[in-house]
Amino acid sequence: MENGASTKWRFEGNKDYNYNSNTNTKTAATLTVRALLNTLLDNLNQNDTRPVIPLGHGDPSAFPCFRTTSVAVDAIVDAVRSAYYNSYSPTVGILPARRAIADYLNRHLPYKLSPDDVYLTLGCTQAIEVIVSVLARPGANILLPRPGFPYYEAHAKHSHLEVRHFDLLPEKGWEVDLDAVEALADENTLALVIINPGNPCGNVYSYQHLQKIAETARKLGIMVIADEVYAHVSFGNNPFVPMGVFGSIAPVFTLGSISKRWIVPGWRLGWIVTSDPNGIFQKLGIVDSIKDSLNISSDPATFIQGAVPQILENTKEDFFSKTLDILRETADICYDRIKEIPCITCPNKPDGSMFLMVKLKTSLLEDISDDMEFALKLSKEESVIVLPGIAVGMKNWLRVTFAIEPTALEDGLGRIKAFYNRHAKKQ
Amino acid sequence: MENGASTKWRFEGNKDYNYNSNTNTKTAATLTVRALLNTLLDNLNQNDTRPVIPLGHGDPSAFPCFRTTSVAVDAIVDAVRSAYYNSYSPTVGILPARRAIADYLNRHLPYKLSPDDVYLTLGCTQAIEVIVSVLARPGANILLPRPGFPYYEAHAKHSHLEVRHFDLLPEKGWEVDLDAVEALADENTLALVIINPGNPCGNVYSYQHLQKIAETARKLGIMVIADEVYAHVSFGNNPFVPMGVFGSIAPVFTLGSISKRWIVPGWRLGWIVTSDPNGIFQKLGIVDSIKDSLNISSDPATFIQGAVPQILENTKEDFFSKTLDILRETADICYDRIKEIPCITCPNKPDGSMFLMVKLKTSLLEDISDDMEFALKLSKEESVIVLPGIAVGMKNWLRVTFAIEPTALEDGLGRIKAFYNRHAKKQ
Repeated sequence: MENGASTKWRFEGNKDYNYNSNTNTKTAATLTVRALLNTLLDNLNQNDTRPVIPLGHGDPSAFPCFRTTSVAVDAIVDAVRSAYYNSYSPTVGILPARRAIADYLNRHLPYKLSPDDVYLTLGCTQAIEVIVSVLARPGANILLPRPGFPYYEAHAKHSHLEVRHFDLLPEKGWEVDLDAVEALADENTLALVIINPGNPCGNVYSYQHLQKIAETARKLGIMVIADEVYAHVSFGNNPFVPMGVFGSIAPVFTLGSISKRWIVPGWRLGWIVTSDPNGIFQKLGIVDSIKDSLNISSDPATFIQGAVPQILENTKEDFFSKTLDILRETADICYDRIKEIPCITCPNKPDGSMFLMVKLKTSLLEDISDDMEFALKLSKEESVIVLPGIAVGMKNWLRVTFAIEPTALEDGLGRIKAFYNRHAKKQ
Repeated sequence: MENGASTKWRFEGNKDYNYNSNTNTKTAATLTVRALLNTLLDNLNQNDTRPVIPLGHGDPSAFPCFRTTSVAVDAIVDAVRSAYYNSYSPTVGILPARRAIADYLNRHLPYKLSPDDVYLTLGCTQAIEVIVSVLARPGANILLPRPGFPYYEAHAKHSHLEVRHFDLLPEKGWEVDLDAVEALADENTLALVIINPGNPCGNVYSYQHLQKIAETARKLGIMVIADEVYAHVSFGNNPFVPMGVFGSIAPVFTLGSISKRWIVPGWRLGWIVTSDPNGIFQKLGIVDSIKDSLNISSDPATFIQGAVPQILENTKEDFFSKTLDILRETADICYDRIKEIPCITCPNKPDGSMFLMVKLKTSLLEDISDDMEFALKLSKEESVIVLPGIAVGMKNWLRVTFAIEPTALEDGLGRIKAFYNRHAKKQ
């Protein structure tokens, strides 16, 4: 053996090499919400003794008022104690869970899904990963909303799938700019994504608008990817309508999860559903392609799958309504307090999800030039975390969650007001 | 809106298009163990009233004698009931779980891992996926064992990473052919993979052989990926030695999981550990690259992470020894009964894992030309599932698991003998 001290490790000569340059993972990951929030958390002033106010994420599960129902916890306990679910899961998920999800969605559909329309995933994030990977092919593109959820962009880059952005219109309640969709689409466009209820805008689309989206998709011959991770998290005037209702107009991939409605994002249980009564996905071979992709992916823990029927069937309506009552209250607090802070404006009172978007007027600020600088200084000076709009495609906007304990929300918005007063441009 | 009845869906003109042609997902998935076992299960004769004998997979959890310890179940129950673990997990996993895994591995290492060396993954499968994706770059290659675990090949294809195969030597207890490794490696070779205890061969490598592997890697300047999903599942003469012991000779990625030792593959809890006391991975930027990859991946359910310290620290030694006693017994039964079946031969009595490999002599069979035909006819006629060797890179071999209830194993091997007698070439 040669003298190991002088070994030149294969990577050593390549320090300047862009790791994953063929997949763009690095670039993509840099833009994730997760990485940006980590940057802001790292920026906190450790000498500030006040509690950190997390207005950056969509995960209120740590707050006692947002604790999940005991029905869900008991379902997990029963499943793991049964010893029926220690084995590997089938590729598509176990049948009782798929049947329960089909039944759950069928309550709001004009046709019947079967368990074979349901594929279990590791939360909605893996659902996105699988769909993007299934659609990826040389030259193809998909249409994404701006603002949106950057996980789509990250995985599209990873899979070499081109993305094109259409605007959501703040002056129209963040509706899809359907003219822009028509202008963007070409013969290589495969699908458009909508997120409803909306992350990051808090919109809940009307029946009529969803129908128009479906009709536009049909006209263009493209599929609809309906990200409904916030399904039923609607507390305003528009009731939540699943995009699958319009599955006979255009075929719909419905992406969902128990993460938000049950407030258990850490449980990693979601689904892809083909809401497609005309069987177009099957005919096109897309169903086989989903199975192929899942064959080389990890599955949700089998006993969590085993808990799904109990969770979906036994949860009481009053758990959901209590959560919606709190969100309605905190959305009101958030919208009202923001009006008292001149440098940020919110175009629409949110009707659903856990977020709203505010526009940042840097012209009113002395020493802050953009959203990233605002978020960094705010975390350092006030221990308040908000997400810079660049993370969701909107420079000089901010995404703010109202899904936290009401008193903490009041505290956080008070600190933002104090922050504004300190940084306001002197007249 | 145009008449939808005549809508031409974008994919429709592309039926002959190879889905995922840019990623080869389809081709790769076709070769997965999972897809092949599904094919064999679909081939069962539904009129056979005998129980199916599953000798194809490495998941004995459904058998009562292989039930996991109540310590592990209680740990899950405590974690989910605590309500501390409903939130999203940090990218790398929660600190108490990473610390517990570092402590667990440190019991057998000559240096100390820190929690920062540990990254939680969705079982060992996601660990493979992440490492392959991190190493992928244009022109690079990795060295894989033949026979091996085809998940590596599937993800390497998906990530456009070239693979080259070295043989394991049946006449030397399935040791790595180190001359072949040296001959295969070039300046674009980044790593070599070993699986110890071995899937599919049931080998457990000696301290001396592992040291030679490390020294070869050092000489070539390549890293070692040590797949230790079967760590401590050794019941023969060679004790299990972690490859990390030799981390100061060559840097090692240790891939592990609770799936096999605790017999809970459905729980999806694994890890990547950088067993690298010289900090070479950190220096080369590989650590950042792992974090980037995990930033756009799903995490193990947070409450399962929360259960890890209790599981690793409180499991009693007698649970492990009971499992090993059964495996020793079933390995003996399997090895002995195979000797009575002329068309298959096993070169080595297994010392670990849950598998052995047998060579198929088609020359002794009347109407069976290869391993796939053997497995298909066996499933149809005898309701016994074995894995054709092509799935693990060895045509006309079979992978047989002995990790099932002893009486079921006797039954299955009896049926294989009857199957041979029926198909034996008449002299």
